[in-house]
Amino acid sequence: MTGGVLALAGGVGGAKLALGLSKVLPADELTIVVNTGDDATFHGLHVSPDLDTVMYALAGLSNNETGWGVAGDTFNSLGQLERYGNPAWFNLGDKDLATHIRRTELLRNGSTLSEATGSLCASLDIAIRIVPMTDDPVHTMVETTEGELPFQTYFVREQCRPVTLAIRYDGAERARPSPGFLDSLETASHLIICPSNPFLSVDPILAVPGVRQRLEKFAGRRLAVSPIVGGEAVRGPAGKLMRELGHEVSCVGVARYYQGLCDIFIIDEVDEGCASEIEALGMKVHAAPTIMQNDDDKERLARLACHLLGVPLAS
Amino acid sequence: MTGGVLALAGGVGGAKLALGLSKVLPADELTIVVNTGDDATFHGLHVSPDLDTVMYALAGLSNNETGWGVAGDTFNSLGQLERYGNPAWFNLGDKDLATHIRRTELLRNGSTLSEATGSLCASLDIAIRIVPMTDDPVHTMVETTEGELPFQTYFVREQCRPVTLAIRYDGAERARPSPGFLDSLETASHLIICPSNPFLSVDPILAVPGVRQRLEKFAGRRLAVSPIVGGEAVRGPAGKLMRELGHEVSCVGVARYYQGLCDIFIIDEVDEGCASEIEALGMKVHAAPTIMQNDDDKERLARLACHLLGVPLAS
Repeated sequence: MTGGVLALAGGVGGAKLALGLSKVLPADELTIVVNTGDDATFHGLHVSPDLDTVMYALAGLSNNETGWGVAGDTFNSLGQLERYGNPAWFNLGDKDLATHIRRTELLRNGSTLSEATGSLCASLDIAIRIVPMTDDPVHTMVETTEGELPFQTYFVREQCRPVTLAIRYDGAERARPSPGFLDSLETASHLIICPSNPFLSVDPILAVPGVRQRLEKFAGRRLAVSPIVGGEAVRGPAGKLMRELGHEVSCVGVARYYQGLCDIFIIDEVDEGCASEIEALGMKVHAAPTIMQNDDDKERLARLACHLLGVPLAS
Repeated sequence: MTGGVLALAGGVGGAKLALGLSKVLPADELTIVVNTGDDATFHGLHVSPDLDTVMYALAGLSNNETGWGVAGDTFNSLGQLERYGNPAWFNLGDKDLATHIRRTELLRNGSTLSEATGSLCASLDIAIRIVPMTDDPVHTMVETTEGELPFQTYFVREQCRPVTLAIRYDGAERARPSPGFLDSLETASHLIICPSNPFLSVDPILAVPGVRQRLEKFAGRRLAVSPIVGGEAVRGPAGKLMRELGHEVSCVGVARYYQGLCDIFIIDEVDEGCASEIEALGMKVHAAPTIMQNDDDKERLARLACHLLGVPLAS
């Protein structure tokens, strides 16, 4: 027993490392805390995109081509919903819809989001603990040159096109960390910040009252993996956002953002030249291949992270 | 203007004649009032099987092979719901689910079932008025030798296998006719009882307080089509139920059940020998082909019903 690893994750990049970690750590040594600022209601159903991306990854259901949804899914229900006048710009496959239908049923019957997530994961035989950052509603809002947009409107409908001026996490000030998150904050001996978008995935988690302070004073070692490689995001709008918000679009920019929260920073091997600049921020730096194209890549990066943290691996 | 036709319908047989009527009557001369005693909640979604069967028929979406659901539908969502531990014995296709998702969204946003039905029908370009018998919850409960079962449990899960002792319509005593039903009860000049199950489809409608009395005193002519042909139901459990509940399984048994509610009774040509026995109940009898295998059959029977009632047809 090490006290366990607490991993913070958002969408695709986070889910990839989370899958790697699930392969190399004993199930009871890992808690994955997932951003819920992206959660939204479509067709009256509660959709938790990041929780689902992590869950589908660990269940082997992910659609690796799109990065979202379930592999081999169909879209017949969405097509019919569009006939009924419902918005169809948020792609929801038929199997994926079942997740939202079931989650909504559980929530309406009184379950918390943590309990609903636990139920879904148990049905998919996921032994790792996946927990939402909070059971309270938090909504990431993107202030743009075209007005303030709910996250999914900005991200999916507008394809991140509008210029971002600021981001806020509506409701975060009243949110409490979920019981599983709190438990892990108290007991975990190691922290991993997955290569997720710092603003859209990690920041909402840090915005839950008390979380940033606890992680600043975290007793164990803390490691982050840069989602920026060679001056651009591996995937998604992180680069565009950092630029628009006045940050340097580089692993150095990310490291500055995580200063005080991170002791060890993994950058990609192409960014090795940035190591000394990041070390000057008070972090140990390790350069390695960080692009995860297949399950071996995910496991290798997870193994490296655990090795650098000194976490014993599953035999 | 004739004051219009009020048609009472349940599932498949009712939907067939309703489709025929929609082809031969002007849209503003027909109101189809549909049984909602079969309504049930599956996966947290409000399912109205009879309303949907009529709606899909009039929208040209019906699966004519099964009699329920949407033609060419897939079942991917249901399969995934089953993985989450949800009951999968009630077949809900992906396109069909969209109807229940949208209806549930509308109801949760404060629409009545009438309003939700109107919205769905408008989206499917249905000009005919399809209205639920009531906007209040009514649940058909089947008392059997194996205990009391909710209708869908009896009908779908148990395939009507248990022996029926009695049927009751839970909530009917507190239900009010829907606004569209009330309006049609006040203004319609003609009544048609479609060839639906007398106990499971028509009786719940009659059980809504005031409806039976109003139809007994109905100012215009009233016509019913027998769902029993040659001593058996054309489809479904009507024959088995009539037998178990002590009724004669014949068009005569149905006519006795509708005594006081019906002036003209259409029986199938194979039952012509029963005519005098039914006439003795005070009804005019007309024998004709009543099995509706294709759209021409439906239109022909609708045309006959309107002709016998003296309703002017669309030109």
